Amino acid sequence: MKQYKVELNKKISLAKLDPNETGDFDGGKEKGLKAIEKLNAELQELQELLYAEGKHKVLVVLQAMDTGGKDGTIRRVFEGVNPQGVKVASFKVPTSEELARDFLWRVHKVVPGNGEIVIFNRSHYEDVLVVRVRNFVPKEVWSKRYDQINEFEKILADNGTLILKFFLNISKDEQKERLQARLDDPSKHWKFSLGDLNERKLWDDYQQAYEDAINKTSTKYAPWYVVPANRKWYRDLVISTVLVDALKSLKMKYPKPKDNLDGVVIE
Amino acid sequence: MKQYKVELNKKISLAKLDPNETGDFDGGKEKGLKAIEKLNAELQELQELLYAEGKHKVLVVLQAMDTGGKDGTIRRVFEGVNPQGVKVASFKVPTSEELARDFLWRVHKVVPGNGEIVIFNRSHYEDVLVVRVRNFVPKEVWSKRYDQINEFEKILADNGTLILKFFLNISKDEQKERLQARLDDPSKHWKFSLGDLNERKLWDDYQQAYEDAINKTSTKYAPWYVVPANRKWYRDLVISTVLVDALKSLKMKYPKPKDNLDGVVIE
Repeated sequence: MKQYKVELNKKISLAKLDPNETGDFDGGKEKGLKAIEKLNAELQELQELLYAEGKHKVLVVLQAMDTGGKDGTIRRVFEGVNPQGVKVASFKVPTSEELARDFLWRVHKVVPGNGEIVIFNRSHYEDVLVVRVRNFVPKEVWSKRYDQINEFEKILADNGTLILKFFLNISKDEQKERLQARLDDPSKHWKFSLGDLNERKLWDDYQQAYEDAINKTSTKYAPWYVVPANRKWYRDLVISTVLVDALKSLKMKYPKPKDNLDGVVIE
Repeated sequence: MKQYKVELNKKISLAKLDPNETGDFDGGKEKGLKAIEKLNAELQELQELLYAEGKHKVLVVLQAMDTGGKDGTIRRVFEGVNPQGVKVASFKVPTSEELARDFLWRVHKVVPGNGEIVIFNRSHYEDVLVVRVRNFVPKEVWSKRYDQINEFEKILADNGTLILKFFLNISKDEQKERLQARLDDPSKHWKFSLGDLNERKLWDDYQQAYEDAINKTSTKYAPWYVVPANRKWYRDLVISTVLVDALKSLKMKYPKPKDNLDGVVIE
């Protein structure tokens, strides 16, 4: 799965990456789902260890085009993981209090503490994505944000945060199918707004904005993974694998008991 | 399961309630676990509907003696429910900023918003439990808090919050067994502190404090349920049933689409 990590000295081109592929995974969906199940059990154990040790912090950033599968990823990959140790932060339209400050202010408030996993469902990257595509601020403002993001993430990493950033890469055709499926299912209509179709019209602009963001903010301490996401099971398999491997690499240990428990009797 | 709800005009006596019972449930653990699975699937759907409708807020308060099973309840009852719609709030030792304000200030900050479920793992009730038993504040301060809690919860309920409060009722013997099991398992020693045993010595004082709290703050808008919790599966079954029934009683509906979607074509 290492192949999906964006290399430091290489620029990626999204047009050349296939959202449909399943890499060199030997087996189809059924085998993939079994592998995910096993990884999920590992993740549950690693999360408990992370919490017990209380030393590292984990930040997972999820970004995708509309219908890209952020919600599904969170449900599937983190299923059964103790909800007390995993928080999801979603970023809505900024409040006036938030707009009066730098764009990272509201983000900093919700970063993980020791022993915690926080998942950003959308993130500070929207400030160089929709904000750029929709011209919410002038270019001279958003163009400086890439460096600011790198600096901000460095501060977090230097203070014990494992940062993993995933771009769920779906194709334009796949998005069409998913939007159509929502349209065909009346029970999903409440989620549907015509605004989603306006965003779709800007597909190429968004792809460009994503490509730039990924190329400018892939760092050693906060790497991007471009995940082929047309097939949901493969998307979940890639993310689960990266996450489990990264947590294992922390070489965490259960802490020693606070007290000497020799000869303790419970009355 | 209605029998576990504390009636408004009746005082409960914890000593008379059996933590070991399984009520009139027809069937043992195996049948219980199957029923929980079914309730869990219902809960997942109801949570989605709650989120979609965005009208009601749900606050679940969990209180218990040490080892009473709050963590296990959260994992089991809410397994598979979308983590984006369910938040867990834990209350640690208050900060100086929190201590400088009324005891409900930090609690108010984390109440659920529209469409959200928030689970309090411990809560403002600690301010009439450990605070009372340990004399952290004088009686004239804590004794006024029952009314303040009722007033606070009334404000939340009047503003669209469904409040369900559960006391997980274990016996003193069961606590002994659970503490012993932790002591016998070296991998759990990091969780064990001798302070837990000091709290156990105050068992009767805590039972009295719980009984008073439950009797003084069982209201129509924020009822207490005293859940027999020696058997974990039965505890989870009771809580799942109460939760699902309460959510159903809200008679929620999926909202109408924001836009007229007739004849929409996705290009």
